[in-house]
This record gives sequence, structure tokens and C-alpha cells, in this order.
Amino acid sequence: MLARTIGDREAFQLATSEDRSDFIIAPDPHAPRLTRAVEGVDQNGERSRISVVEERPLTIFLNAQEIVTAMTIGDYPEYLALGFLRNQGMLLQDDRITAVDYEEDLETVVVRTLRQTSFEDKLKKKTRTSGCAVGTVFGDMMEGLEGVRLPPVPVRTSWLYALAARINRTPSLYLEAGAIHGTVLCHEDRPLVYMEDVGRHNAVDKIAGWMLQTDTSAGDKILYTTGRLTSEMVIKTAMMGIPVLASRSGFTAWGVEIAREVGLTLIGRMRGQRFVCLSGEDRLVRDVDPSTVASEDRKHRRKSAEA
Amino acid sequence: MLARTIGDREAFQLATSEDRSDFIIAPDPHAPRLTRAVEGVDQNGERSRISVVEERPLTIFLNAQEIVTAMTIGDYPEYLALGFLRNQGMLLQDDRITAVDYEEDLETVVVRTLRQTSFEDKLKKKTRTSGCAVGTVFGDMMEGLEGVRLPPVPVRTSWLYALAARINRTPSLYLEAGAIHGTVLCHEDRPLVYMEDVGRHNAVDKIAGWMLQTDTSAGDKILYTTGRLTSEMVIKTAMMGIPVLASRSGFTAWGVEIAREVGLTLIGRMRGQRFVCLSGEDRLVRDVDPSTVASEDRKHRRKSAEA
Repeated sequence: MLARTIGDREAFQLATSEDRSDFIIAPDPHAPRLTRAVEGVDQNGERSRISVVEERPLTIFLNAQEIVTAMTIGDYPEYLALGFLRNQGMLLQDDRITAVDYEEDLETVVVRTLRQTSFEDKLKKKTRTSGCAVGTVFGDMMEGLEGVRLPPVPVRTSWLYALAARINRTPSLYLEAGAIHGTVLCHEDRPLVYMEDVGRHNAVDKIAGWMLQTDTSAGDKILYTTGRLTSEMVIKTAMMGIPVLASRSGFTAWGVEIAREVGLTLIGRMRGQRFVCLSGEDRLVRDVDPSTVASEDRKHRRKSAEA
Repeated sequence: MLARTIGDREAFQLATSEDRSDFIIAPDPHAPRLTRAVEGVDQNGERSRISVVEERPLTIFLNAQEIVTAMTIGDYPEYLALGFLRNQGMLLQDDRITAVDYEEDLETVVVRTLRQTSFEDKLKKKTRTSGCAVGTVFGDMMEGLEGVRLPPVPVRTSWLYALAARINRTPSLYLEAGAIHGTVLCHEDRPLVYMEDVGRHNAVDKIAGWMLQTDTSAGDKILYTTGRLTSEMVIKTAMMGIPVLASRSGFTAWGVEIAREVGLTLIGRMRGQRFVCLSGEDRLVRDVDPSTVASEDRKHRRKSAEA
């Protein structure tokens, strides 16, 4: 693995910045609470013991109001709560957060703000989108996008290749136990915060929560995800202010439309040297010859049909 | 492909019923409304024209009340509405449905019942599960499961292998355009209704809607899905009364627990001859030698990380 990583990098070493491959947050697949060994049988009737991910309910409160119960692997409940509320538009840009109280035994998180909040009306009507943005009224969601225009940052293809290679080789719950989604906040060719969860929107919300907590800028970041580039994923990324979204997976037509409207650079079907860019082609800087990029190491290729 | 299919079947022909491989409903990947050709560039900067799935909002009403807006590929709006409402517990077993009115230009479906309905309270509190069961209060969801005990039907492994082989070779939007989930209602070794959608829960709800419309029994059926066997998927299957759930993908711990509690036979990680059964091992009937089952044809293997 090490030789291959070096080989990948040699090919475009001149083009990338120094390899600072330390994640700020990376998955910890061996954290005991996150997986459980379960016994069953295999196709031959022999005992089979496998590692499966844990799912736990986490009930999120905003001040005195119960908002939602999210099923999560439970690694970053505070970030999940903050990011969820922020991405649903219930926490505002200028809100002063006075506390984020996680009670493990009650499986709840309470986010408290200076501002008095009340979302009775908002909670009434829901949109089930392809990934279920609970709490977002469809009309509100599209309205929230009006006037959103992301900064036209250039995207070097060397960054994309470096990120994909680095992320695909990072130990993760996915590689250990399957059945999970990952999303990574990146800066240029460096992955920063890699979050996983059973629900992809949880992974993205945890990133949003971390960004909120650490007051991290969005306009110079790239979001890399394992999942499909649906309209909901595109909208979420745009609302977070991140101007580049990349994935191994495919697109939906509406996702592409929205990306083009808000100026999001959208790259999908990233496998080995291949990718397709359906929004922001003009912002791509081709600083590396694709033929020098190693094709995927099959061992590290993400397994089929994990959804 | 044909030779391979025959070869697969020869190995366990004695064990299966006659190959009635006609689906009642199968995907129609070339239906014009479901995909769109979109242009962009590839890694070499060359124009790339690819087929991507359409997503459309569909607003579902129950009588006079707007319930949710679902993002869907839009092939079976009536089944989606019926199945969604049924699976959310808003349509009851004995409800008399008087109309299902789909208005294409308004992108709405109204389901009308004899019974007066009102779900103000139910809509207030939501659970975001791994796949977002909008409208289901978490406590209600777990309560709804209390006392559920599925019929202990035997499951022949020959059926599972036949289904997987048949389904993986069926032309689908997935194979055409990616970015989509499929779930198939089956009986023994015969796939019956294969639904796809951008959101997996939509695919399952469409099946539930079809079952409701056609008054199809659940206790003798198998549900085969491309996605992970999360708690939500297990709960949904159990609430639909289907006693067997199978997937190529992995498990979550809670999904396994719930399956065991309600007596659901749970088979995952089905690839080629391999699988793992974590619930209902005693109900498996091994009527075929796994070594005679062909390993996966790589061409037909579902692509990585489509979520």
C-alpha cells in the first residue's frame, strides 16, 4: 500500500502541495462503541462472526423544544446536533450558542441559544427528499437557495486525485463493517474532517457542526462524499457555502441543474483517473495528466451497493 | 449471459420450481421521463454526454391535508402515495380508499378515504432515521413493532441465489444511469415487482402501495433490496408483514436485534455464493450446494458506492 501511494504521488508530485496527510478528524473504526460483533451462519451453515455498525437514537432539542430523533453511530452527538439544526435553518449564522449539552444516558443533546426559538410551524410540513431532509419544508428549501451564488474557486484536478486516493485508503468503519456513508471536508489536496454515519446526511451534518464549532470557513473547501450527488446533497453543500462537491457516485438531473444555478462545481463518477464534471467545467484546472493517475486498487475499491 | 444463466440453473434445477421469470413490474430504464442526457466534460477535458436520473417533487395529500413532498423519479406516483401513507401508519388496514388522484401538472397525489383523517399531532414530531422515515414518531415506530411476530416461513437458499442472479441481470435504471436504489418483492424464486427510486424508502413504499392496490399477501413474500439492512429497513419490512429480507449489503446491529425480535429472516452480504444470515438461521433450507453457484459476473456487479 505504501509503495503504491508513493507511486501515485510521484506521477504528479510537481503539481501538488506538500503532502500534509494528517486528518483533523478521521474515522476510528476500532472505537468499541461503534461496532458490535454479531454471530450468525454463512452459506455453508458454518458459524460466522461479523462486525456490524451500531445505530443509536439521538434526540435533538433546541432550547426547550424537541426537534427530531436521529439514528446515528453516536460518535459525535454534539456536532450532529449543531450541524443538523444549522443545516435545517433553525440555527442562524449569528446565533449565540450558550450550551451544547449531551446526556449519554438519556441519548439526548440540547442546544441552547440566547435567542428564543420556536419552530412549531416549520415542523408541521416535511419534505422527504431522496435522503430525507427532515424539518425542511420543500418551498423553504428552494427559497433558501434563491440568490445563493458560490465563489468561483478554481479546482485543480491534482487535488481531486490526491483526495480520492487518500480517502479511499483511510481506515474507516466502512472498510471494517460496511453499511455506512462517509463525507470528507477537504482543503485543496488535504482531507481535514472525515465523518461517517449510517445516514449520509448525518455525516454531512456532523461536518457542518464541526465547522460551526471551530468557526471554519466554507468558501475555500471541497466536500467529498461516497454517495450520490442528489439534489438534496447539492442543496445542502451549497447552503453550507462549500463551492465544490465530488463523489465516486453518480448524479441526478436536478442536482446538476441546481449546481449550475448556484455555481457549485460538481464532479462525479470519480474512479481511478476517470471522472465527469457536469457543473463548473470552466473552473477545473487540469494540472496533471490523467493517464499518470493509478487505476483503482481493487482491494480498496469501495464495495458494491453499500447504501 | 444466457449460457451463464442456464449454467447457474442447471446446478440446482432439481430444487427450484419452474423458472417463471416474468416480472409483474420491472424497471423500464428507457422510459424517457426517467432520465435525461446531460453534457459536461471528462477527465481529459473532452465533452461527455451521460444519462442521469430525473428527480421530481411529488406532494402527497391525505384527504385535505398536505402530508409530505417526496423527491422521486416519478414513475409510480399513485403507488408511492399509497405506500408511503400506509407505511407511515396514516392509512390503516381497513381504510376504504375512495380515490387516488394524481395531477401531473401540479405534481400532487391526493389519496381520499371514507374515514375522516387528521394527523396534526403526528406530523409535529419527526424521526430522522438512517433513511429518514419522515412522519414517524420514533416512539410510535418502536411501539408499532410491539407484538409483531412474523410467520416462520422456511427460506430455500436456492430461491435466494435464483433471485439474486435474476435481479442482478435485469435491465434497470441503476445499470443505465446509476444513482438509484432498487427493491424487489419476490415470491420464492420469482421476482415480482421491482421498483427503483432515488430514495430507497420510496422504492419500498411503491411496493407497499402496489401490494395495497392489488391486495397482495405479504406473509409468503421475500423482499430483496440493494441497500443496507438498517433498523429502519428492517422495521419497514416487518411492518409490511414480509418475513424475509435479503440484500447484497451489510447490516447494522439494531437491524439485527429487531429482526430477531420480530422473527424476520435476515440475509445480507449476498455476493455470488456467499451470504451471511444473522436472524432466522433455523428457517434456512439449504437445498443447493453453494459451490455450484456461479461467482458474480463482474460486469453485472453493482457498482461501488452508489448511495
